[in-house]
Amino acid sequence: MISDKDHSYMRSALEEANKAAQGGEVPIGAVLVDCASGDIVARSGNATISSSDPTAHAEINVIRSRCKEVGAQRIPAHDLYVTLEPCAMCAAAIAFARIRRLVFAAPDPKGGGVLHGGQFFEQPTCHHKIEIAHGLMADESGQVLKDFFQKRR
Amino acid sequence: MISDKDHSYMRSALEEANKAAQGGEVPIGAVLVDCASGDIVARSGNATISSSDPTAHAEINVIRSRCKEVGAQRIPAHDLYVTLEPCAMCAAAIAFARIRRLVFAAPDPKGGGVLHGGQFFEQPTCHHKIEIAHGLMADESGQVLKDFFQKRR
Repeated sequence: MISDKDHSYMRSALEEANKAAQGGEVPIGAVLVDCASGDIVARSGNATISSSDPTAHAEINVIRSRCKEVGAQRIPAHDLYVTLEPCAMCAAAIAFARIRRLVFAAPDPKGGGVLHGGQFFEQPTCHHKIEIAHGLMADESGQVLKDFFQKRR
Repeated sequence: MISDKDHSYMRSALEEANKAAQGGEVPIGAVLVDCASGDIVARSGNATISSSDPTAHAEINVIRSRCKEVGAQRIPAHDLYVTLEPCAMCAAAIAFARIRRLVFAAPDPKGGGVLHGGQFFEQPTCHHKIEIAHGLMADESGQVLKDFFQKRR
């Protein structure tokens, strides 16, 4: 079930993707929402180049930021919105952080780890059940990536 | 092919696992070796509790540390030694960092992502071919974990 609120959060994630593109980073954006307040408590785009950190995907950045802020490695009452299907690294990090709900926009057949590849959340090695929704604003989110890579060729 | 040098590096990784246990962290250790010099250039145990960071696995810690040091998100001429089979998160991070060779000690049927679960390196969504060796010092590395969890019960 996708709501108007979900679209609003995903628009914020898309803003982060656009900011990332302006900085020369792969344009993927994420926001983390505190379920109790409904507030966005962390927002980031990919930052692997600027931070010289191959793990600095948008999802990892918001999880690390919020965990540090609350002083815990698990943040169960939070929902994550991301413009692209998370990779295996981010999918596992989402489970480790005990995120309640994952909402993503565009699927990623090339590098995704949720619907594609090892489908992390379907594995017996995943120890956290999560609610997943996807497809909202998929065209806009995918287009930002297409534009970015087209300009680079 | 496992060499004497591999055992020496894995002993250093095991030291990091033991240090992690002393700090109350899950005792998994890793070292990163510069292939050109043969030097250990980063070493860490798990630090998810002390750093309030669910992504602070030993493997991620050494990759982030070395990447930051050299100012790049890819460190191809490096080998990684870790006392336990990496999870899906770490396996993907290892591929993103373009690590040359992964050597791990004990298999991890419960949470591993290399031999188990989504078997990350076997997926078409993995875009980096890597050399993998495992099994050396598996008993010692597994025992540190068993002792740790037994004490906590």
